Amino acid sequence: MRKIAILGIGQTPVSEHWDYSLRELAGEAVFAALEDAQRPTAEALYVGNMLSGQLQKQEQLGTLIADWVGMRGQEAMKIEAACGSGAAAFRMGLMAVASGEIDSALVVGIEKMTDSLPNITTAALATAADADWEAICGLSFVGLNALIMQRYMHEYGWQHADFAPFSINAHNNALHNPNARLHIALTPEKYLGAQMVASPINLMDASAIGDGAAAVLIAPAERLPTQNGAIPILVVGSAAATDTLAVHDRKDPLWLSAAEISVKRAYAQAGLGPKDIDVFELHDAFSIMSALSLEASGFAARGQGPRLGLDEEIHPHGRIPITTRGGLKARGHPVGATGIYQIVEVVEQLRGIATGTQVEGAKIGMTQNIGGSGATIFTHILKTM
Amino acid sequence: MRKIAILGIGQTPVSEHWDYSLRELAGEAVFAALEDAQRPTAEALYVGNMLSGQLQKQEQLGTLIADWVGMRGQEAMKIEAACGSGAAAFRMGLMAVASGEIDSALVVGIEKMTDSLPNITTAALATAADADWEAICGLSFVGLNALIMQRYMHEYGWQHADFAPFSINAHNNALHNPNARLHIALTPEKYLGAQMVASPINLMDASAIGDGAAAVLIAPAERLPTQNGAIPILVVGSAAATDTLAVHDRKDPLWLSAAEISVKRAYAQAGLGPKDIDVFELHDAFSIMSALSLEASGFAARGQGPRLGLDEEIHPHGRIPITTRGGLKARGHPVGATGIYQIVEVVEQLRGIATGTQVEGAKIGMTQNIGGSGATIFTHILKTM
Repeated sequence: MRKIAILGIGQTPVSEHWDYSLRELAGEAVFAALEDAQRPTAEALYVGNMLSGQLQKQEQLGTLIADWVGMRGQEAMKIEAACGSGAAAFRMGLMAVASGEIDSALVVGIEKMTDSLPNITTAALATAADADWEAICGLSFVGLNALIMQRYMHEYGWQHADFAPFSINAHNNALHNPNARLHIALTPEKYLGAQMVASPINLMDASAIGDGAAAVLIAPAERLPTQNGAIPILVVGSAAATDTLAVHDRKDPLWLSAAEISVKRAYAQAGLGPKDIDVFELHDAFSIMSALSLEASGFAARGQGPRLGLDEEIHPHGRIPITTRGGLKARGHPVGATGIYQIVEVVEQLRGIATGTQVEGAKIGMTQNIGGSGATIFTHILKTM
Repeated sequence: MRKIAILGIGQTPVSEHWDYSLRELAGEAVFAALEDAQRPTAEALYVGNMLSGQLQKQEQLGTLIADWVGMRGQEAMKIEAACGSGAAAFRMGLMAVASGEIDSALVVGIEKMTDSLPNITTAALATAADADWEAICGLSFVGLNALIMQRYMHEYGWQHADFAPFSINAHNNALHNPNARLHIALTPEKYLGAQMVASPINLMDASAIGDGAAAVLIAPAERLPTQNGAIPILVVGSAAATDTLAVHDRKDPLWLSAAEISVKRAYAQAGLGPKDIDVFELHDAFSIMSALSLEASGFAARGQGPRLGLDEEIHPHGRIPITTRGGLKARGHPVGATGIYQIVEVVEQLRGIATGTQVEGAKIGMTQNIGGSGATIFTHILKTM
């Protein structure tokens, strides 16, 4: 595949953007990415979004946003893979540019979740689960993850407190990220005392929903103009893999096989392994997912993910820094946008501008974006040029 | 772009498939395409769908269907561009294979529209319009098209009866297509006497919704195996273009500028022009759209589209045969699937198996799939090898 570079990044704060429409919010991120790349426009626009049809009664989002950002006439469409929609759109953008069909593309992830009543948003999120076998039983997303976490703790002998470092690290990192949804320092006491949502998942195990948009501008790496602006970052690995939607259909519900497949492909493309990754933006929708993602990606043995947190290896100065800008937990999880926020944050790290949580000398970063409870997983590896 | 061939096609009848779930219906089309291509599986699955989140409360459709058709683990995602979702997914599949990332891909279009109450389906379809400026005023899709048709008749001096040949041709062709939704011969009298929906659009100007799935298997053309089975068909043109979602934002609401842009790009890629097209599956969601599509694609002068119908040039033996298997009007319009049905039908024509409505000696065919009232338009040109 033709090598692709990220030339520009943009993001809005993850917040309650009640005064922005979908197109306006997406526009903020797109305009920032264009300015960052010092380009007036791009040839095509790919949008990652999950919920606009259900929550804003708006589909055809690609074209809507393209028109708003001054790209009327140009190619545009929306890509959906539940909470993995952002990375799905990014991968589609990469393949479009790699094919030679498109010479430069904007990829924007956008989600507005706080305009609706919480029960409407929760029901909309449940459409990521198997409607015929999971959602129909009344299982919500937090319910599904609670069952997985319950079993994981039983199987491997962990206590609830052992997951605290994942949330504490995310919250502490978010304190330095002006775009984060939550700026609240977390202690082990606050973590354990938080309100229960679906046992054993309490409020401090669960990511925060929000409204947000993030965007990147990509182009072929071999024809980069001399730039006065930002340092281009190379995409050296991109892979997608799937599993069953329904968790009960899996041979082992405690193993993210789609993460394993996608990460192995991405490592192979990049000629790299877990030891080479300086920073890893993983999909901590729930604290249990941090553990499972670290294990399937080769950073911890099966059932030993929480050990990395307890050993302080996940901090910005640890062996494998994760959620360095707050992660889904504290930067926030505007679902269709999350995958692009992850890319943007790894670019910040590789450019050396991750103020307050900079991973020293970071040269190689990885993102992992998950749709459903491990059903669709995208892994991307980025590298300084 | 690396040349791509279509190796297999599959389709279900467009009907009321109340006894099939989403995955089962999609599976029927996928298995048929695999059997037709004489291949056991493919590397990736791209799904065109618009309404599953709203009507079946099911997102992450790519992965759901991949698992069902035996592709667990493989790459999968959903692509959305309203009623143009099928062709959007096809184009994404082409670019994925052209990039070298994916070696063979299944593209399936799927929609289930008849399980829901009609007013729910109508409201869901309105999410293709601009939610903030059109749908909010109570404008439905047929309402938008009625305004366009009203103005077109006023501007160019046509009568309602002048549009009859579009619907009559579609219905007559559908009589020979076992997969068509409607098998009802249409006369000028029946056309004019049909129930009014939104003046001047009556029931015989409007396409029939339905449940359906269609699939194609694509692979690089340069490495085709010796096949005992079907004749591979080459994709020689593929283009996407956009316009405003809101019709009132266009300089000329009677001109499909996105069709013009996409068709010009596709002609240029193929080194062909309107005179070379033997068969044209256009997007006759409403009879007015047939006229506008023919004009923007270079087959009729501005405002003169209906003339081709009145002169009997659109029949299978005319100058530019359209809707040869029934079109959206009579084959039916399961929105996210329609773009793939069009591809499948042009492949039938180029293979010479379009029983009853075969265009004699057809070597080059074109499809045009439209999202919204002309907002996102995809043009594809196929050719015998």
